[in-house]
Amino acid sequence: MLVPSLIECKRDGAALSAGEWTALVRAYGAGEVPDYQMSALLMAVVWRGMTGAELSELTAAMLESGDRLRFDGWPVPRVDKHSTGGVGDKTSLILAPMVACCGVAVPMMSGRGLGHTGGTLDKLESIPGFSTQLSLRAAETQVRQLGCALFGQTPEIAPIDRRLYALRDVTGTVPSVALIAASIMSKKLAEGLDALVLDVKSGSGAFLPDEARALELARTMIGLGEAHGVRTVALLTAMDRPLGHACGNALEVEECLLALRGEGPADLMEVTYALGVEMLLAAEVVAAAPAARTRLEATISSGDALQKLGEIVEAQGGNPAVVEDPALLPQAEESAVFPAPRAGTVTAVLPRPIGHGVIAMGGGRSRVEDTVDPSVGFVITARPGDRVEAGQPLATVYARDAAGLAAGRAALEAGIRIDGASAPPLPLVSHRVTAAGTEILAR
Amino acid sequence: MLVPSLIECKRDGAALSAGEWTALVRAYGAGEVPDYQMSALLMAVVWRGMTGAELSELTAAMLESGDRLRFDGWPVPRVDKHSTGGVGDKTSLILAPMVACCGVAVPMMSGRGLGHTGGTLDKLESIPGFSTQLSLRAAETQVRQLGCALFGQTPEIAPIDRRLYALRDVTGTVPSVALIAASIMSKKLAEGLDALVLDVKSGSGAFLPDEARALELARTMIGLGEAHGVRTVALLTAMDRPLGHACGNALEVEECLLALRGEGPADLMEVTYALGVEMLLAAEVVAAAPAARTRLEATISSGDALQKLGEIVEAQGGNPAVVEDPALLPQAEESAVFPAPRAGTVTAVLPRPIGHGVIAMGGGRSRVEDTVDPSVGFVITARPGDRVEAGQPLATVYARDAAGLAAGRAALEAGIRIDGASAPPLPLVSHRVTAAGTEILAR
Repeated sequence: MLVPSLIECKRDGAALSAGEWTALVRAYGAGEVPDYQMSALLMAVVWRGMTGAELSELTAAMLESGDRLRFDGWPVPRVDKHSTGGVGDKTSLILAPMVACCGVAVPMMSGRGLGHTGGTLDKLESIPGFSTQLSLRAAETQVRQLGCALFGQTPEIAPIDRRLYALRDVTGTVPSVALIAASIMSKKLAEGLDALVLDVKSGSGAFLPDEARALELARTMIGLGEAHGVRTVALLTAMDRPLGHACGNALEVEECLLALRGEGPADLMEVTYALGVEMLLAAEVVAAAPAARTRLEATISSGDALQKLGEIVEAQGGNPAVVEDPALLPQAEESAVFPAPRAGTVTAVLPRPIGHGVIAMGGGRSRVEDTVDPSVGFVITARPGDRVEAGQPLATVYARDAAGLAAGRAALEAGIRIDGASAPPLPLVSHRVTAAGTEILAR
Repeated sequence: MLVPSLIECKRDGAALSAGEWTALVRAYGAGEVPDYQMSALLMAVVWRGMTGAELSELTAAMLESGDRLRFDGWPVPRVDKHSTGGVGDKTSLILAPMVACCGVAVPMMSGRGLGHTGGTLDKLESIPGFSTQLSLRAAETQVRQLGCALFGQTPEIAPIDRRLYALRDVTGTVPSVALIAASIMSKKLAEGLDALVLDVKSGSGAFLPDEARALELARTMIGLGEAHGVRTVALLTAMDRPLGHACGNALEVEECLLALRGEGPADLMEVTYALGVEMLLAAEVVAAAPAARTRLEATISSGDALQKLGEIVEAQGGNPAVVEDPALLPQAEESAVFPAPRAGTVTAVLPRPIGHGVIAMGGGRSRVEDTVDPSVGFVITARPGDRVEAGQPLATVYARDAAGLAAGRAALEAGIRIDGASAPPLPLVSHRVTAAGTEILAR
């Protein structure tokens, strides 16, 4: 294999031949291909894209570079949900116990915060004692016992994805639909799933804000999932504003506990139920959406889902009393109400300034080695379209000190627009995409 | 300086800001920027190109990464000629002594064979004893004394260009007009020139076969030269067939010695005189082309140019008797006439198969570390348009053994087409490009 020839092939817009991506990934894994050749090839992929056949082969090679969860012979259907990332995007912590209460196993491998968005692992780790570092075998055992495990990518899962992601991060080669899809799916396909539901965000706070690109990513991931025998469906959901009220790790866990008691914010619950219905449908444990919704609602009204989360927390070393008493979560030293600077109509609550605000307060990472303060963040009650009076509370800032409060206020000033020019809010769930096609749910 | 941001900027089609290329080249030289970031950036440049301002800054930074020839206060005008490379392209060895006899100094820094093309250094080194490795100071002294030095890129000249070139070679990032122009000009601008004449090849044997791309390269290099105070002019010349008859190092030197006696092939002399006239005009030692041509012809009829070459050979450690007795050059062990396989019209003599044939016989490099057999090659007398009879000699193959002869014959069979479909031959000199514009000389 002549690596320069492969680079030239992609540079000139052609597809690599069958077997070449596999050989390349193996040689890269063996240290035979230097990073400087791989990064040039990745930039050529950003430029030229990949065919479906190339992408499927690359994803398989990345998957096969590592180990995977194995549930051979176990009859319980397995489903996961993956979000492309957003601000206040906390549906995983609600969905996992709900769906696990419906006879569907959820082996949920999640990631950390990235850029302006939060990460499920960081949220979980705000629960005192909770460990997200399970071995693959431990995760398998817990899924068989409790129907759910919430854990991070282990070193055995798609190690080439890990190396490629680190390389892409410093070489300007992240924003390729093909490479994003291959990275996500090489990990999701390692979970031993029967089905996968994708929450693809669009709007200004999404990694791919543009609806057309978000749909392209959804279709690309669906193609990869189906090619590997995993029923895959995607919902396009709104990330032109944070989801729910809470943004910040412990604050979001607290909101999830409220949601599991039936007291979640309407927007959060609408997206959560929409995804949950798809998970049950894809798992084929219900025949139609209304029945799925009824079953999911029952897990909340019965208290089963909250109890399930307590069992998961306990199994993973966390304090299970948290689910009954959110005050056991880390609490910020300082808090302050953020009042409306003037009367008017809220025209936008922008996720990016708010996500960056959480990081500025210490609740996220600028660099991989940064530690996260789980207590800080925002609870934002203002919503686009709200009529507000001057001085009316729009949000509460939670910070560790006065400097943090100031940073939080500045973020809200930048993020909450009153009477500014803004596009109308996106529908919460706009498209449903399957292998069969795309259904527009709302405009 | 955040290198990922610079890569993203170029990836997204924007120009780097003033100072950023300079800072990047310095940091790369200092080992602070890894090759994997540089190669991704180079691929983004292949994709997106560079503005004139960016290119000028990159070229200056590469130039300033090293030393240069200095002729401060010396009143003699300095001119060089640079060719983008071809097969049988030997004009440098004829031009350098001719022009040096006209009161114009020629500090000619050349390269080695690259791909299917020959290199001036390899040709010079076929002269017994000739050393192309002069220090910068030695080259300056010889130019002042003899009006000419023929030498290779020293380690002090544009060291960053050397590193970038090695990186581009293995990362599929060679074919960028911007990067090719920056690489060439960062070296040429180190020669302390008043003027530069570019021989930009087009046709199937050129690195940029397409006329439009060749013109783009010419204009880009002219812009760079003029921006650095060097009068720069380019001729577009034909490389759809070898130039002259001889292809192979010692054979080409021999043809140059014939040319300096007034016995060179017509096509070679036409291109040589066209370039020489531009060199004298650019040096401003003559006012018009006919006077320049007359002076150049006089250097041959007087024997002065041949004598000058002898002086240069002697100064650089070579056997000066070679210029009077070409039989002192390395002679191939084997030779064989290549007869026309059938009667017909020669429709093409293709440079690439013939250049690759010289390499296959041992007269060029497949890898940098290969040694070159100077004696092997071809003397091809057949020309596109010739009517030939079956069995009529078309060429002579010079090789070191029977296997070499066979390889040479195979190359000629692939390279010389009789009655094949081929485009009509390109005009030998088709365009003249200056900062003022482009003149079409022949179609």
